[in-house]
Amino acid sequence: MTEALIYLDPDSNLNLQSQIRQKLVDAILIGTFPGGSRLPSSRKLAEQLGVARNTVVLVYEQLIDEGFLESRERSGIYVNKGILQGRIGFHRRSSRRVEVDTHWRKRFCSQTDDKPQFQWPDDWQKHPYPFMDGHFDASLYPTTQWRESSRMALGTRDLSTGLVADGNTDDPSLLEEIRTKMLPRRGINAALDEILITLGEQNALYMLAHLLVDETVSVAIEEPGNPRMRQLLALRKAKIVLQPVDENGMLINTRLDDTQLLYVTPSHQVPTAVTMATQRRQALLKKAHELDQLIIEDDFEHESNFLGQPHPALRSMDKDNRVIYVSALPRVLSPGLRIGFIVAAPELIREARKLRRLVIGQPSLVSQRTAAFFLSLGHYDSFMARLHQEMNQRWLELRDALNHYRPYFTTMPNKGGSVFWVLCPQHIDVETLAIEAAKRGILIEPDSHYYAGKRQSKNCFRMGVTSIPRESIREGVERLRELMWELESGKSEFLNEDDPDLLRGNELQRVMSGSTWIYKTVYGDPCTFELHEDGTLSGWAGHANEERDNGKWWIKDDRWYRQWNEWAYGEISSFYITVKGHHLRLFNKEKRLVDSAIIHIYQG
Amino acid sequence: MTEALIYLDPDSNLNLQSQIRQKLVDAILIGTFPGGSRLPSSRKLAEQLGVARNTVVLVYEQLIDEGFLESRERSGIYVNKGILQGRIGFHRRSSRRVEVDTHWRKRFCSQTDDKPQFQWPDDWQKHPYPFMDGHFDASLYPTTQWRESSRMALGTRDLSTGLVADGNTDDPSLLEEIRTKMLPRRGINAALDEILITLGEQNALYMLAHLLVDETVSVAIEEPGNPRMRQLLALRKAKIVLQPVDENGMLINTRLDDTQLLYVTPSHQVPTAVTMATQRRQALLKKAHELDQLIIEDDFEHESNFLGQPHPALRSMDKDNRVIYVSALPRVLSPGLRIGFIVAAPELIREARKLRRLVIGQPSLVSQRTAAFFLSLGHYDSFMARLHQEMNQRWLELRDALNHYRPYFTTMPNKGGSVFWVLCPQHIDVETLAIEAAKRGILIEPDSHYYAGKRQSKNCFRMGVTSIPRESIREGVERLRELMWELESGKSEFLNEDDPDLLRGNELQRVMSGSTWIYKTVYGDPCTFELHEDGTLSGWAGHANEERDNGKWWIKDDRWYRQWNEWAYGEISSFYITVKGHHLRLFNKEKRLVDSAIIHIYQG
Repeated sequence: MTEALIYLDPDSNLNLQSQIRQKLVDAILIGTFPGGSRLPSSRKLAEQLGVARNTVVLVYEQLIDEGFLESRERSGIYVNKGILQGRIGFHRRSSRRVEVDTHWRKRFCSQTDDKPQFQWPDDWQKHPYPFMDGHFDASLYPTTQWRESSRMALGTRDLSTGLVADGNTDDPSLLEEIRTKMLPRRGINAALDEILITLGEQNALYMLAHLLVDETVSVAIEEPGNPRMRQLLALRKAKIVLQPVDENGMLINTRLDDTQLLYVTPSHQVPTAVTMATQRRQALLKKAHELDQLIIEDDFEHESNFLGQPHPALRSMDKDNRVIYVSALPRVLSPGLRIGFIVAAPELIREARKLRRLVIGQPSLVSQRTAAFFLSLGHYDSFMARLHQEMNQRWLELRDALNHYRPYFTTMPNKGGSVFWVLCPQHIDVETLAIEAAKRGILIEPDSHYYAGKRQSKNCFRMGVTSIPRESIREGVERLRELMWELESGKSEFLNEDDPDLLRGNELQRVMSGSTWIYKTVYGDPCTFELHEDGTLSGWAGHANEERDNGKWWIKDDRWYRQWNEWAYGEISSFYITVKGHHLRLFNKEKRLVDSAIIHIYQG
Repeated sequence: MTEALIYLDPDSNLNLQSQIRQKLVDAILIGTFPGGSRLPSSRKLAEQLGVARNTVVLVYEQLIDEGFLESRERSGIYVNKGILQGRIGFHRRSSRRVEVDTHWRKRFCSQTDDKPQFQWPDDWQKHPYPFMDGHFDASLYPTTQWRESSRMALGTRDLSTGLVADGNTDDPSLLEEIRTKMLPRRGINAALDEILITLGEQNALYMLAHLLVDETVSVAIEEPGNPRMRQLLALRKAKIVLQPVDENGMLINTRLDDTQLLYVTPSHQVPTAVTMATQRRQALLKKAHELDQLIIEDDFEHESNFLGQPHPALRSMDKDNRVIYVSALPRVLSPGLRIGFIVAAPELIREARKLRRLVIGQPSLVSQRTAAFFLSLGHYDSFMARLHQEMNQRWLELRDALNHYRPYFTTMPNKGGSVFWVLCPQHIDVETLAIEAAKRGILIEPDSHYYAGKRQSKNCFRMGVTSIPRESIREGVERLRELMWELESGKSEFLNEDDPDLLRGNELQRVMSGSTWIYKTVYGDPCTFELHEDGTLSGWAGHANEERDNGKWWIKDDRWYRQWNEWAYGEISSFYITVKGHHLRLFNKEKRLVDSAIIHIYQG
C-alpha cells in the first residue's frame, strides 16, 4: 500500500529523496497514515520503490528529527501520535496540491440554488424538546422486522442469480406488493407497466422534473411549498407560478391557466399540513382536463390521517391518465430503505426507466427484495399500525398543548400528518424565536425557507412530532410560550386593576352562573362551554360537537376557577375575568391576558 | 381497502351501481384483487361506501352471473380464480383509463437515446457457457460477511439517532475507511472535503456530467468506449470527440486540443481491457495541464491486475487537482451495496453534494454503515483476495483456452480485468456469431454497442469471466471455435494432399529436428519453441520469457506429435506440417489449417 502512495516521477525537479519525503509527509498530515501506524522498514520500502536503501534511511531519519516519525526499538518506525495536535486544518484540507485555480465556478454548467437552507443542528439529540419534522426517534425504527426481511432478502437464491442487473428490471415481487398492498389503500389500480421503483420520493421527483420540465415549461407549485421541488424546477430553468394555499389546499383559479404542469401535495400539504378538500380536487382535475395539463401528485404522508378517513389519491379520480403519482415507503424507514415509486402512464414510465439507468443504474436488488419481504411478511401493516397509533397520540398531545396555551398559537386546520403550522403573535419575529428557543432546548422550524416569494407574515413556524417523545410535548410548548412572553416583554397586555370591566366577588359569581362561552380552538374548530348554576361545567368542541367534557367551576378571591375532567389536563386553573358587552377576557394569576371568548349571559 | 378503490363520483354519468361495478371489474382484471381473494360482505361494503345495501347486492349478483365473482356457501364472495385465464393482456396493461392522447412524446423535455442496447438474455443461467461480463455467479457473493456487516450496521445506536439525514452528510466512518483503506491502494491521499459518496459509479458519472457538461463543452471519450457515458453526454448535449484506443490506451494527440474535459478508463479500458501505459498517462496529464483540461478518471476494476503491479491512479500523479477520480465498491457487491465515490477538488465536491441532495436525497445510511463495517472488519480485504484469486484463475484459464484454440482468436494485450477483447476471423460476422453461439449455450458480447462511430472491424467481441465457472471455460471456447468453423464453411483452408510443401516421414523428422519456432501468443506476447534432436521440447513465452515449459515431440503417420508438460493442457496433439521458406503451417487431423509459425531450421 505504501508503494502505491509514493509515485516517483522521473520528470520531477525533485530528487528521489525529496519526492519520497514529500509524499510521506502528505500522507501523514492528511491522515492517510494515522498517528501510531507503522511504516514499512527502510529495506522493504526501498525494495518496493526500486531505490537505494540509503535513500529511504535518510528520509526516515530526517522525519524522525522533525517529529513526524518515531523509531521504537526492536519494533520499527511509527507515525508520531502527537504530530497532528494543533494541526486540525491539515486534516480537513489537502495541503499537498498546488492549488492552481482551475476556475471551478466558470466550469460548472449547472449549479444548484445556493440560498442557505434551513438546517437542524447536528446535535439535535441533546435538545429535550425537538419539535422537528422528518427525523424519527430511535424507538420507532422497526429494527427486528427490518433485520428479518433483510436476512431473507440475502437468503434468496436469486439474489445474484435471478435478475439481470441491466438497469431496466425492477424486482417483480416488490412491484407486486406495491401493486396489491400499497396502492389499493390509495384507491389506485395500476398495471405493471405503470409503476417504476425509484430511490425514494426525491429521486422520483428529480426524474420527473428532468423528463417533463425545461425552460419552456410553466409549472405551478404551492406557495408556501416544498423547497426541494422549487430547487429542482430552478435547476431545470422552469417558469414557476407560485400558487397560494388556503385551509382547503392549493387555490384553483385562472392563475393556473397558462401552466402545463402542476405539482401538488394534496394529502398533507407541505409545509402547512392542510388536506385538499374534495371539491377542490374535482376542480383541479376538471381544469387539468380542459387545459390538458399534467399533475404531479406527491402523496406525502398519506398514511397519517388522524381525523376521518383519508381521501383517495387524485390519481384514483383521474379519468385520463394525467396524474403522475409519487409516493414512497414511510420516511421512518429511510435510513435503511430508500424506496419510492412513480405510478403513471406507461409511456412516461418507459421514458423514466431509461433515465433511471443513467442516473442511478438501478435500485439495489437487496433493498428492493428487503422491502418486498417487509411488505409480504405483514411487517409493513403492523408497523404502520404501530406508527400510526404513536403519531396519533403525539399529534393529539401537541394539538391539545397548543390549544391549552392559546391564544399564543393558532394553526391551520389539520387532519393529521406529523406537523402543525403555527401562527404566533405578530410582533414576534420567528427567526429570533427559533434561535432563542434552541438555546432552551426547543427546536422549531421557521417558515421562511418554504416561501419562494414574499412571506405573507413573518410569524409562522412548524412544529413536528416525529422526533419528540410524547411526554415532553406539553412541557416544550409551555416553555415556548414562556419564551414568547419574554420576547414580547412590554407588549403583553396585563390586567389594569382599575378596569371598570373587571368582575369581582358576587358580581363575578352572578355573571358567570348560567353563562355560555363560545371559543374557537387553536385548530379552528368551534368550542362551547356552559357554566351551570350548580357549579358544573359542560363543553363541546368540533364542528359536529364530537368532543365533549364535563367539569366544575367556582369563584374564590375574585378569580374564576375551573377544572375539567379531561380537558386542560384535568388541572385546576384560575383567571381574572373582564366582560365588556359580549367580549370576555381571561387573565392569569400574574394578571397577563391569556385568552378571550364570546359570552352569552343568561342572568338568573 | 376496498372502499378506497371505489371512489364514487357524484358528477358521473353512471349511476352508483354501475360505478361500483366498473371499479370492481377494473380491480379484478388488473389484478389488484387477485383470483381467489375474498371481497367484503355486501352489508359491509354498502356501509363503507354509504350506499343502500341492495345496490351492492345487485352488483355482486351480476358479477357472479358473469363469472367475475363466485359465492361460497357460509363463507362469502370471492374473486373467481379462472377469470384471468386467457386474459394476460389485462394483467399487463390498464384497461380502465380512457386513453386520452396526452401527447407524451411532445411533453418530454429530455429523452434518453433510444438506440437498442445490447442485453443479455434473462435466462442466462440456463446457458452452460456464459462468457458475460458484469454478472457474477452466486458463489462469489460474500453472503456471510455482508450479513454480519449489515447486522452490525442495524445494531448501531446512531442508525436513527446519529446523523441528520439532510442530504448533506456522509457517514463519517465510511469516509474514513475509504480514505485510509481504499484510496491509499491507488496512491491517493484525500482530505475529507475531497470525497463524496455516491450511489455507485453510474450515479457518480451522472452527477459529474450534470455539473461539468452542457452543449458548449467538448468532451473527449474513448472509442470504443463506455456506452452509458456516451448516453450521459448525449443527454447533456455535449460536443463529443471520439478518441481511438490502441494497445497502450487512449491516444494522446492534437485531436484532444479543442476539448475541455476528458473521460478515460486507464486501469482497464472499457471495453478492450487495455491498461494505459505510464508514458501515455504522463502525456495525458501534461497536455491537460497545458490546455487546462479536466479529466474524469473512471477507475474501473482497478483491483484486478493479474500481471504485474497495478498502476497508481492518474489522480495520484496529478499535481494540480484536475483529475476527478471515480470508483466504487466492487461490482460483485452491487446487488446489495451500491456505493461509489468521487475524489476531487473540494470546490467540485461541494457542488456535487448540493446536486446529490436533489437527485437522490442521500445514500442510505444503513448501506453506508454496512459498507463501513465490511471494510473495517477486514471483510473487504479478505473478500478481495478471494475474488482476485478466483478471477485470476478464470482469466488465465480463458487466456490459455483462447491461446490453445488460436489462431481463431486474437486479443488486445491485457494485464487483467475480467474480460478479453477478442478478434475473430474477418469473414465471420460477429452479430451472427453471437446469435448462433447463444443457441449452443455460449454467451458472448458483440462489440457494436461500444462504438459511437463506424466500427473499425466487424469481428470483435468480448468474453468475460465473472459469471462462468472455471471448469466450463475451455469447453466453451472449443465449442465456439467449432461454431466458427461451421460459419466459415467453404472459407476454411484445408491441406491439399498434393501440396509440394507438405512434409512426410523422414523428411518431416529431419526438418523438425533441431528447429526453432517463433510464434505470437493470442495475447500478443512472443513465444519460442525448440524441438531438440533427442525428442524433447522446450518453450518460452512472454516478453521476458517469464513462462516456460518442456515436453516431447515425435513423428508418426506423417504427422508431427507433441505433448507439453503443462501447456496445451498437457495433452497429445498431432498436426500435418507444411514448410515454405520460413513459413510453417499446421493442419489438424481433419486437415484443417489451425496454426502457423516462423521456423528457423538448423539442419544437422
